[in-house]
Parts: sequence; C-alpha cells; structure tokens
Amino acid sequence: MAEAVETMDGWYCLHDLRKINWSAWKKASSEERQAAITEFQSLLSNWDDVEQAKNGSHAVYTIVGQKADFIMMILRPTMKELNEVELAFNKSKLAEFTVPAYSYVSVVELSKYMTKEGEDPEQKPEIQARLKPRLPKWEHICFYPMDKRREGNDNWYTLPFDERRQLMYEHSLTGRKYAGKIRQIITGSMGFDDWEWSVTLFAHDALQIKKLVYEMRFDEVSARYGEFGAFYVGNILPKEAVPSFLHV
Amino acid sequence: MAEAVETMDGWYCLHDLRKINWSAWKKASSEERQAAITEFQSLLSNWDDVEQAKNGSHAVYTIVGQKADFIMMILRPTMKELNEVELAFNKSKLAEFTVPAYSYVSVVELSKYMTKEGEDPEQKPEIQARLKPRLPKWEHICFYPMDKRREGNDNWYTLPFDERRQLMYEHSLTGRKYAGKIRQIITGSMGFDDWEWSVTLFAHDALQIKKLVYEMRFDEVSARYGEFGAFYVGNILPKEAVPSFLHV
Amino acid sequence: MAEAVETMDGWYCLHDLRKINWSAWKKASSEERQAAITEFQSLLSNWDDVEQAKNGSHAVYTIVGQKADFIMMILRPTMKELNEVELAFNKSKLAEFTVPAYSYVSVVELSKYMTKEGEDPEQKPEIQARLKPRLPKWEHICFYPMDKRREGNDNWYTLPFDERRQLMYEHSLTGRKYAGKIRQIITGSMGFDDWEWSVTLFAHDALQIKKLVYEMRFDEVSARYGEFGAFYVGNILPKEAVPSFLHV
Amino acid sequence: MAEAVETMDGWYCLHDLRKINWSAWKKASSEERQAAITEFQSLLSNWDDVEQAKNGSHAVYTIVGQKADFIMMILRPTMKELNEVELAFNKSKLAEFTVPAYSYVSVVELSKYMTKEGEDPEQKPEIQARLKPRLPKWEHICFYPMDKRREGNDNWYTLPFDERRQLMYEHSLTGRKYAGKIRQIITGSMGFDDWEWSVTLFAHDALQIKKLVYEMRFDEVSARYGEFGAFYVGNILPKEAVPSFLHV
Amino acid sequence: MAEAVETMDGWYCLHDLRKINWSAWKKASSEERQAAITEFQSLLSNWDDVEQAKNGSHAVYTIVGQKADFIMMILRPTMKELNEVELAFNKSKLAEFTVPAYSYVSVVELSKYMTKEGEDPEQKPEIQARLKPRLPKWEHICFYPMDKRREGNDNWYTLPFDERRQLMYEHSLTGRKYAGKIRQIITGSMGFDDWEWSVTLFAHDALQIKKLVYEMRFDEVSARYGEFGAFYVGNILPKEAVPSFLHV
Repeated sequence: MAEAVETMDGWYCLHDLRKINWSAWKKASSEERQAAITEFQSLLSNWDDVEQAKNGSHAVYTIVGQKADFIMMILRPTMKELNEVELAFNKSKLAEFTVPAYSYVSVVELSKYMTKEGEDPEQKPEIQARLKPRLPKWEHICFYPMDKRREGNDNWYTLPFDERRQLMYEHSLTGRKYAGKIRQIITGSMGFDDWEWSVTLFAHDALQIKKLVYEMRFDEVSARYGEFGAFYVGNILPKEAVPSFLHV
Repeated sequence: MAEAVETMDGWYCLHDLRKINWSAWKKASSEERQAAITEFQSLLSNWDDVEQAKNGSHAVYTIVGQKADFIMMILRPTMKELNEVELAFNKSKLAEFTVPAYSYVSVVELSKYMTKEGEDPEQKPEIQARLKPRLPKWEHICFYPMDKRREGNDNWYTLPFDERRQLMYEHSLTGRKYAGKIRQIITGSMGFDDWEWSVTLFAHDALQIKKLVYEMRFDEVSARYGEFGAFYVGNILPKEAVPSFLHV
Repeated sequence: MAEAVETMDGWYCLHDLRKINWSAWKKASSEERQAAITEFQSLLSNWDDVEQAKNGSHAVYTIVGQKADFIMMILRPTMKELNEVELAFNKSKLAEFTVPAYSYVSVVELSKYMTKEGEDPEQKPEIQARLKPRLPKWEHICFYPMDKRREGNDNWYTLPFDERRQLMYEHSLTGRKYAGKIRQIITGSMGFDDWEWSVTLFAHDALQIKKLVYEMRFDEVSARYGEFGAFYVGNILPKEAVPSFLHV
Repeated sequence: MAEAVETMDGWYCLHDLRKINWSAWKKASSEERQAAITEFQSLLSNWDDVEQAKNGSHAVYTIVGQKADFIMMILRPTMKELNEVELAFNKSKLAEFTVPAYSYVSVVELSKYMTKEGEDPEQKPEIQARLKPRLPKWEHICFYPMDKRREGNDNWYTLPFDERRQLMYEHSLTGRKYAGKIRQIITGSMGFDDWEWSVTLFAHDALQIKKLVYEMRFDEVSARYGEFGAFYVGNILPKEAVPSFLHV
Repeated sequence: MAEAVETMDGWYCLHDLRKINWSAWKKASSEERQAAITEFQSLLSNWDDVEQAKNGSHAVYTIVGQKADFIMMILRPTMKELNEVELAFNKSKLAEFTVPAYSYVSVVELSKYMTKEGEDPEQKPEIQARLKPRLPKWEHICFYPMDKRREGNDNWYTLPFDERRQLMYEHSLTGRKYAGKIRQIITGSMGFDDWEWSVTLFAHDALQIKKLVYEMRFDEVSARYGEFGAFYVGNILPKEAVPSFLHV
C-alpha cells in the first residue's frame, strides 16, 4: 500500500466560466445594460475590498474561443463564502445575459513531498502566503483540471512515496525555469469536483504558457501519469475595461 | 469464478440535483415566488414528518459550482414511494423554475465482507440503524457515484473473495480515522443506475472530505480498482434558510 | 477465426423512453390535458388489442430519477410496424408535452449455445413463446443495453465456441436462481442500435433486480466480457393509473 | 512501416439525418405544411433527375427510434455539389421543422487489397459502377461509421500488408454469403469526418442486417480491429409516401 | 526523462466554426439580412487590409455536413488581437443568426526536430514566412485537432529524441509527396486548447486530403502515436460569394 503524501490546504477556490448571450444582451435596452454593468463593477469592487482585507482574492479574464467568454476565479476562506459569492453573481442582472460554461471547485493546495522530517512548513510565512495568495494581475491566464493516471502499469497511486517524490522534484525543476514568467496556483479537488487537481497559470507573455505546458509534458510525471481536462486561455479584463468589453 | 459477496439492503435512495433557472425566477411575480417557496417548505415539512415516523429520511444541501444549485437526497422504504416523492416535486411550482442536473437511484447497502460464519448481522439493531439511517444534518455534503474496475489485470470481479475482503478491510481502516469527522452512506445501484455504487459523505469541515477522499485514493482498492464519476459538494440548506437562498 | 453462434429471432422491439415537460403540461388547459390523456389511453387500448390478437406486446412503466419519466416497450412482428407505433405516438397530443430521453431498437433473440446437434429448437412451442413473448405486468422494470467486450486479452469474439458456451452456461445458472422472481427478455441489436444487446428485467420486488445484476457481475462472462450502458428502473404504470400519474 | 493500400474513390457522399420537430409541425397551418411537402417532393424530383442523368444518386429512409426521423443519403461527383444539395435542403421550408440529428461526409471507396500486380481495376466498368452506384431502393437501410483499431497489440495500421489482405479476404467471404440479401456501400472518410469509414447496408429483410453484422463481428478483422460508431436502421420512404409520413 | 524538442512559434490562430440558424435567418426581414451581410463583408474587408499589411491572415470556408456551416480561420500576432477579432464577430449582426459549433485556439508552430547543431532556423526568411503565413485561397479546407498518444507502450513523450526525430522525418516524407497538392499549417495548442496540435490542410482537389490523411495513418508516428479529434472539411467561401451563400 502506497503512503499518501500530506497536503497543506489554504483558501477555497471557484473557477466560474461564463458565456455571454450576445443576442439577448444586444436586445436589452441601453439602460438595462448600463445597470447590469454598474452592478457587476460594484460586485468587483466588493471583491477588491475583500482582497484588500486579505480575506480572499480574485481574478477576472476574458477567454479566447467559444468555450467561454470570461472567467471569474475566486478565493475565499470557507466553502460557504465561496457559495455566497457564486450566489450573488447568479442573482445579478449581468448573470441573466450569461450562460454557465464550466466551473471548478477546489482548495489551494501544497503537497509535503519536499518536507524534511521534523519540519512543519505550514507555519512558515512564505507557505501561508502561497496557501492564501493574492492572485497576480498579469496579462494572461491559463486554467485546466488534471488527474494522476491509474491505468495498468502507469498507476501513480501505487508508486512508492520516494519514487513519487523524485518525479515531483524533477517536475519542479522544469517549473523553476519559468520563474518570473509564469506564476502557478495548484488547487486540490478530490471530493470537490471531477478531476483531482486544477492548475491556473498566470503569464506576461501567452507563449510562455504553451512553452511551459509543452516542456512539462516530457517530464515523466506528466508523460506517464498526467491526464488533462479542457484548457482555457485568456486575457486580463480589468474592472475599468468591463464597459468596453460589453459595449455593443 | 469469483464468489459474489452477499449484501444487506435498506431504504431506497434518490439523489435529485437541480439547477435553478434564475432568470425565470426573477421574472416571476413576488407572489408566485412566495407561493413556490411556501409549497416547497411544506413538502419539506412532510418529509420531516416521514423522518419523525422513521419511514424515511432526507437531506437538502446547496451545491457549489455550476453543476447544480441544490441536492435533495431522499430515503424511502420502497421504490414506489421514492417515485412518488420525485413526482410530487416535479409537479410543484418551484420545479417549474428548476432544471434537472443529475439524479441517482440506489438502495442503502452494507456488504457482508466482514461477517463471521454462522452470524446474521442483518438482525443486529446497529446494522438496521445503518440500513435505515437518519441522515445527519452536518454542515457539508459530498456525493459521487463509483464503479469497481474490470480492466485487464485490474479486475475486481475476478479477484478471490479473500483478497477482496482484505482490500476492503484495509480501506475501512482509512475510513475509521475519520470517525466523528465524516459520516458515510454507501448505496448500491447495480440494475438501478449507471454506476455500481454511490457514496455520500457528511462533514462538519469541508476539508475533511478532501482529506478522506485523497487518503483513500492510495488504498489499493481505490488506486487499482476504483472508478469515480462526478463529485458534488455543498453546504447544508435548512428549511428556514430556503427563503433567503431563493431571495432575489 | 471464432465461429459465430446462430441465433433465433422473434419480434422487433422498441424501448421508447420519454421525459415529461411538466411546465408546459401544467400551462396547458385542463381540456387539452384531458384530450391528451384520453388519446394516449386509446393508443394503449389499441396496443392491448394487438396483444390480445398475439400480434405483439407492450409494457408501460414510470422511470425513477431524471433520466426519463416513463418507458414504452413495444414488440411487433416487423420493423415497419414498430416504426408505425412510434410515429403514431410522435403525432399524438401527449407527445407534444414529452421530450425524447432514450430509445433502443432491437429484436427478441435467443442464442443457440445450448442446442444439441440435429435439434431444431426454433420449432418448439416454448421457444416460439419466448421469441414472441407476452410481456409480464409485474411491479418493476429494469432496462439496459450491453456489449461483449473486445479489448486486449478480454475479447469475447475471439474465444472458441466451446469456451463461450461454457461461460454462457455458467451465467444461465445464476439466472435460474431467480426463476419466478425475475423475468428476463434479451434482444439483439447489432446493426440496429449502438450496443449489441438489450436486457429487460421484470420483477415483483425491485431488490431482486439489484441482487441479480450484482450476482451476475461476478460471473466470468460479465466480469471479463460485459460492457454495460445506462440502467433504467421503474414501476408499472397501468392504463387506468395514467390520469393520476399525469394529474397536476 | 506498414504499406498503405491504395484506394479507388468514386462519388462524394453525405448522410444527412434529421429529427422532425413534431410540435412545431403540428402548429403550422395546413397550407404551410402542404407547401413544405410540395417543395420537398420537388427537391426529391430534382434528385431523381440527377440520378437519371447518372450524375449522382440518393436514398431516403425513415429511421426507427429517437436518434432520427429520416435519413437522406446523397451521392454527387464533387464535394461542392454535395454542399449545394445540403444547402438547398437547409434553405427549404421543411428544414424549418427539422433538427439536425447526425451527418457524415465521405467518398465511395474500394480498396485495392485484392488487386493483382499489373492490373488496373479502376478502369473496369463493374468497378466504375460500384464507385458511382445507383443506390438500391430496397426495403431497409442500416448506416454506421467505423474505425480500424490502433490500440496496444491490436493495431491495424502496423500490420503487414499481406496480413491485412488475408483478414480482409476472410471478411469478404462472410459478406458474400449475403449476396442478394444485402447490398453494401463502403465510403472512406479520413480527412472528411470523425470516423475512418462508413458502411451503408440495404436489405429486403431487416433481420438479414442483424445477421450479417453479427456474423461479421466474429471475423478477426472486426473482432480485433473493428471500432463502431452509432447504428441507424430504417424503412424506405418513397417520394409518394412523404405526405402520409408527414400527415398530422 | 525524454528531452523536449524546441519549437518556433508564429502567429496566434483561432479556428471559429459556426452553424447558421436558418429558421431565424429566414424570419428576419430582407433589410436586416442585407445589413448583416454588408457588415460581415466589411469585417472581411478589414481582415483583408490586415492581411495586405502582413499583420495577419485569414481563411473563410463553408463546412460540409451538420457539424458547422462555415469556418473562419484567423491568424494574428497576439492573443489579444485574436480575442478582439472574435469579439467583433460576436457583436456583429450576422452572429445573432449563428450558433457556435466549435473553436480552437493555438499558435503557428514549427518544431526543431530537423535543426542542425549551431543553426538558428528561426532567423531564416522562409521559416518566418511559414510562421506568419498568408493562408492560401485554395478550393478546399480540412481542419482537425490531434494529440500524441501517451498510453501503455505507445507513449510518445517517453521516446528518446532521436527516435521521435526519425519518426517525424519519415512522416515528413509522406507529406512531401503531396507538395503542390496540399498545403499544411500546423499549430500548437498545449495550454491553449484541449488537444496538443491542430492541423489545417488546404487542397485544390478534396480527394487529395483523404489520400494524404489515409496514407499518413500508416506512418508509425500516426499508427502508434496519433490521436485525432473531429475532422471538418469544406469549400472556399470568397467574400463575393457570401450573399449567394446566405440568400434565402
């Protein structure tokens, strides 16, 4: 029986992806549209206040392609608060002009593969900062869910701990090459959603996202043990750009 | 030919997950909304009476993320009563503002892997209590369906009985570590729905759900033989909180 | 090259599963609803006449859970008559308030695995009765499609005839234990629909359905070679109960 | 590296399957319905003219079950003409009352597995007749797409040419048993649609379709290398039967 | 650990496939339709200007079959510009009469499998021309996404670099046979969309598309390592043919 690695868990996380029903939006009166935009911006301001108070964080990006028009990534201390944020958006006027595209429920997670015996990394401030992160406001986002494979001879969950640690270590070396270019948030979702983890990447240059994902695909941990869901990519949507994004 | 383990079976179970059509709900008059809420609360009161009379049990939770807005988990002595509960909801006013999201038909099940020869556990009161359980009113729920794998060398149904019993026993040890933190209801659904079992977890702390599912994934019975469907997670929705949940 | 077993084929079969659009149904006037119910009952009476004349048979059951609200299982001597029954329902008033949920096209089939040389079982009256069966009016139904696996070392279609016969024989022993409790109709659907066979079980006690499917899963023929589609379970809907089922 | 077999290619082929929106159709005025029927019959007459002029062929059948209500199978010399036929139907009045159910784009194909060296079968008139066939007007149709498997040890595309030829030859022997009972059109679709080939069977007796597909499943080429998509089966719909088919 | 090959990356690419809602389109007034066509042609003219200025390129084709009615393939220097083009179409009048069918986000990519040591091919003008290509205006298009397989013994990402290079080299020889008949654009999409690459083929003769894809399927790199998504095929739709394409 393989030994489960311990995890450290931080804020709960909701990725909420929406399509815009452009036909309905265009048919609305300009007053109604303005009211919807104003209310949404006020929601965003509330979220900014929460972020300022270090009680959560969020990121809003457009999504390229038909899979969604925009993503709201929300971090909160409890599952209940996460649900409240979602409910508030669902009851908003803008929501009437959107269609759910995809969502993902998880919690920010760091694994203890690299922890030395006797150490308690969870107490370190830099670890706390990673568990309750302020999401970067970089130019691009990439989000995807993933599993570790359990298939025939490629079964991650039957590998000995040391082998898993070694593979994760090699993987982290690939990641480190992109320091400053990519910021990565890993969330765990077993028991919460359909995949085991989600990965969110932030980048100044969209090409670095592709280069990172491509290079990592050759790491044994991805090549043999990675199973990937849908990938979503997009551009930052600052609060002040919402009106032009929605202008018709 | 591997020997089938006997099961003990209790109440029939329906997991009924619904999305709310918020746009339609907001367009309804406040009288219509109030009537729908009152009728739904009255349905919930009827279910409470059934639970008091020990003729069934139920749990109502919100669901986080776009997969559903709420879940009604219903236990009843017969398949026919289960169908009647479902039909009553379908004919209610609130149902007009909901969209089916997912459902699952099963029966509370306990396996006899640990039964000693000559013993008849089904007669024991504690077993009866587990077969016809009063669902806990804990803060969080997690629901997912699952199969035992039948694939190449990983075929649960060709394993000898003793090997299956040993794997189930090890698995139960992981579960026991979460006693008091997680309550688990297993239902069997072969012949009733698309997966072989469903698992419903109740927790005071949502994080314990993730920790349990994660730790169990390394048990050989899950690592090699578990196939999992969609996971749904949510927060308790007490009858008295229904109006604020639905307030627009 | 493995030798194909011969089959005996009887009546053509359509499983037609429907959801009810309850919102539209409730919005209809009571006259319209009454007209729809009367017309549907008259369709059912026609089907009864066909059954009386031994030109076919049918079964109508509710379905538990969101996958469908009811199932009509229709047997007819030709594919053309099957199509006509379907078309007549599609043109009926009730159909306007239903949404297709799933359907399955097949033909009642018995394999000749157990046939002794020189014998022609197809001529026997008891075989004819099984090929052109009067469907039982028992309390519960269970319907699911299935394939025989063709995957790596688990390839049913490359097994020698004798091995397949032996596996089918063992499987039949499990079935016999449920004589009087379960009646089973097997239909073949290669060339007609997406799976290779469909199985329809009728039971007085719903639990016996689960017990049968569960026990059979350990038969080598299921454990190694069975692939199963969606399972539908329900309760009998007699013609005279249609009005109360549809009463809103 | 396995050697690709050469193919001979004939007319382009579109399988266009449609559901009828019966509710909308019944709500239309009888004038509107009549106009739609007349226009559709006139389309069919145009197609008859093309067929007479040997510039293409077509077949129209009802489909049994919910997957579709009818299929139009169209053969034309170029991809562009195929597109024009499709577009003409899409712009017709009847199309307003239909919903796309499935379609398939391919080209009539014969492989050169059996070609002797030095021979050029493509010049033979009987081959030309098979590449640009007049579709039979037999009682029943069966249509399904398929792939050759590329999975672990069952990889068609890495088999030596001679082994593939031998398997195809054995397969053809099974087919020959059904001469006069089944006519088969094979179309190739790599680069055109999601599967590699489509198979269309025409039969006087629907049961022969099942018997052929069943028997062929035991041929090694199907048992080990065949992957099959959805199967559609139906009854011939002559131009003059269109009004009664659509009569409500 | 296998070594990742370096890539050269050019313009970002959006494949945007749309269905036309013909019923709604026909119900629109002829003025509204004319306005939608004029606005779309003006969009196309803008894209022409961008192409003239060598700041991007595009291709517009009809699609045969129900999967889509037309495809817009757009190349732009940045992810942001790509998003703006998409947004402009979404806000256009014609978009109100279309339904999203499929989209794909990627970047034009050339791999460095054939690069000699010390060489920097990215600086060569012919490479730059391939990374920022002017899309050909040939008669036919074929578009499909694909993965390299990672499954059991067929795992591309664990193959040594030299073996991958050799397989890619053999594959390129097949491609070269079609020089002048097929032009191929490869785009990479790891981190951007659900498959790893997309392939777009342009052809004068549609049959060459099938012949190329078929012949390549026998290359070991495809036979053992290729996983393919949906295939879309169509005919060129020049700007001046838009009115007749949309004429009803």
